[in-house]
Amino acid sequence: MDSTYVVGIDVGGQTSKLGVVDARGAVLAQTVIRTDTYSEVEPYIAELADAVKRIIRESGTEGKVRGIGVGAPNGNYYTGTIENAPNLLWGHERVEFAKLLSEAMDGLPVALTNDANAAAVGEMTYGAARGMKNFIMITLGTGVGSGIVINGEVVYGHDGFAGELGHVAAVRNNGRTCGCGKTGCLETYASATGVARTAREWLELTDEPSVLRSLDTIASKDVYEAAKEGDKLALKIFEFTGKILGRSFADFIAFSSPEAIVLFGGLARAKEFLLGPIEEAMNANVLPLWRGKVKIVFSQLKESDAAILGASALAWEL
Amino acid sequence: MDSTYVVGIDVGGQTSKLGVVDARGAVLAQTVIRTDTYSEVEPYIAELADAVKRIIRESGTEGKVRGIGVGAPNGNYYTGTIENAPNLLWGHERVEFAKLLSEAMDGLPVALTNDANAAAVGEMTYGAARGMKNFIMITLGTGVGSGIVINGEVVYGHDGFAGELGHVAAVRNNGRTCGCGKTGCLETYASATGVARTAREWLELTDEPSVLRSLDTIASKDVYEAAKEGDKLALKIFEFTGKILGRSFADFIAFSSPEAIVLFGGLARAKEFLLGPIEEAMNANVLPLWRGKVKIVFSQLKESDAAILGASALAWEL
Repeated sequence: MDSTYVVGIDVGGQTSKLGVVDARGAVLAQTVIRTDTYSEVEPYIAELADAVKRIIRESGTEGKVRGIGVGAPNGNYYTGTIENAPNLLWGHERVEFAKLLSEAMDGLPVALTNDANAAAVGEMTYGAARGMKNFIMITLGTGVGSGIVINGEVVYGHDGFAGELGHVAAVRNNGRTCGCGKTGCLETYASATGVARTAREWLELTDEPSVLRSLDTIASKDVYEAAKEGDKLALKIFEFTGKILGRSFADFIAFSSPEAIVLFGGLARAKEFLLGPIEEAMNANVLPLWRGKVKIVFSQLKESDAAILGASALAWEL
Repeated sequence: MDSTYVVGIDVGGQTSKLGVVDARGAVLAQTVIRTDTYSEVEPYIAELADAVKRIIRESGTEGKVRGIGVGAPNGNYYTGTIENAPNLLWGHERVEFAKLLSEAMDGLPVALTNDANAAAVGEMTYGAARGMKNFIMITLGTGVGSGIVINGEVVYGHDGFAGELGHVAAVRNNGRTCGCGKTGCLETYASATGVARTAREWLELTDEPSVLRSLDTIASKDVYEAAKEGDKLALKIFEFTGKILGRSFADFIAFSSPEAIVLFGGLARAKEFLLGPIEEAMNANVLPLWRGKVKIVFSQLKESDAAILGASALAWEL
C-alpha cells in the first residue's frame, strides 16, 4: 500500500477538481480545470488527462498510480457512464466517461460513480465513517444527495442508480415542486436551496420581524448568519429544516438499520442549529428499538479536499 | 446438492409449521405443532426437536440434512435470538433460539431470521424472485413486513433488524395509531387489519351504500368478497390501499433501486384490485428514471408451503 497512489477527480458543473492521494488520505498534488467551457466531451477529456498526468509528475508518483476514481453527477458505477446530467454541457446524452478517460490515460483503470456515493466511500476510507460497515451518507448542498453503505459496500441497486434519497416524499400533500418534476421531495426543503426557499416563503406569509427582510436576495448562508446573530425567524427555519430531515431519517433507518447517518456539504456547516432538531424528530419517528441508538455524524473532512478524497477512495477498490 | 436436504420451520404465534425440503423446493414431509401451549421456551424446543426428528425419519433423509432454517417474529440473524416478540408467550425477553434448537438437534446448524426475511430468501431460492439480485419482499398479512435483498443478500443492517418497512410513515399528519406506538405507519393502512380499519372508518364517515354495512364485524376478507361482487365502497377501499402502498414503494425504490417488489401474504390475494392502483401511484411518485421500470410481482408459492420453504431456504446458506 505504501508505495501506491490513486487519483481522485470531482466533476462539477463549473469546475473539475483533481488530486493525487496516498493511502492515508493526504492529497500530494492537486489542480482545477474548467468543466463549463466544453460543449463536447472529447476535448474536455483530453485536457483532464493532461491535468492528471501533470499532477502525477508533480507529486513524483509516475508508475505508482493504481487507478483513477471519479465522482460525477449521474455517474453510473456499473456502466462507467454519465447519463442525462443537466448541469454538464457535454453530459446531456450518454457519455462513456470511464472508458474515454482510461483510453486517454493509456489504459489506467477508471472507476466512476455519482458524487454522493463517492463521498460515502471517502468517509468510509478516510473520514467519519472509518470502521463502519452500515451507514448512510447524506450530502446537503444545492440539492440533497445520498450514498448508502451496507455491509461495507455502496448500494448501487439493479441499475446503478440506487440512493436517490433527496427525492423521497418529505411532504405528501401540497409539497414544493422539485426540479425532478415531482412535488414534496426532501431536497426541496432540506438543501441549501430549500432553506432559502423556506426563508422566502415564511417572510412572505408572516409578518415576523427578521434581519432577512432587509436583503434583496436570500441564500442559505444569509439564513445561517442571521441564526448566528440570534434572529428568531432564521432559527425557526433551521428547526423546521432539521425536523424535515429527522423525520425522513427515521424512514431510512427502518430500511437499512445503519450505525450512523453522516452529513456533509455546505448546509451541514449549520450543525449547531440542525443537530438538535434532527435528533429530536428522528427519535420521535423511529421504531422504539432504534430510539437514541443511531448516530448523527457530521463529516470532518476538510471541505476543499473532501470531493477529491471521496472520488479517489473509489480507486482503491479497482 | 441432490442428496442433501434442509428443514424449514415457521414459528407463528399459534402454531409452528415445519418441513423437510429438497433442493428444488419440494416439501417431502411436514407437520405442525402448537406454539401457544408453552409459556416456557425449553419444553417448546424439546417438542419442536422431536417433531423435526420425526419428519426427517418420515422423509428418509436421516444423515442427509444440512441444517435448519427458522423464520420467527423478531428473529435476529446475527445473534440467533428472538427478542421481545409480543405474540410468543415464551418470547418476551431474549431467547437464544438457534443455540437451544441446535443443541436439541445434536449440533445440527440452525439459522434464524424474521418471517419476512425468510420469505425473501424463499422467493429468491424457489419463487418469483429466482435469478434476481435486487428486490424488496413485502408481506401483507396482519401487519406489513419486509425483506430487502441487495446484491443477492438479505439486508440485516448494523444490528440485524433492518427491513421494517411496515413502519415507515405512510401518512405524516393525523395518521392512524400503530401497535408500535407511532402514528401513520404503513401497516396501519396497508395490512389486512388496515383494510378492515379503512372499511370501518369509511362506513362511519360516509353514507355510501355498501354490502359491508350489514356485517357485525368486518375483516379484510369481507372487503375482498364485497369487491368481487362489485361493491363500490369495497373497490374504493382497495384503490386507496393500493395508492398508499404505491406511494411508499416509490420511496423504497429511491433507496435501493430494486428490479422488482414482490408481494406475499393474505392481502396479496386481492391482486386484481391492488395491482393497478399500486402501479399507478408508484409510477406517479418515482423519479422519471424509474418510471414504468420496476416490476410488481405477486408471489406464486403455494401458501401452505411458503412459510416452510422460506425458512428452509435460509439453511442452504449455512
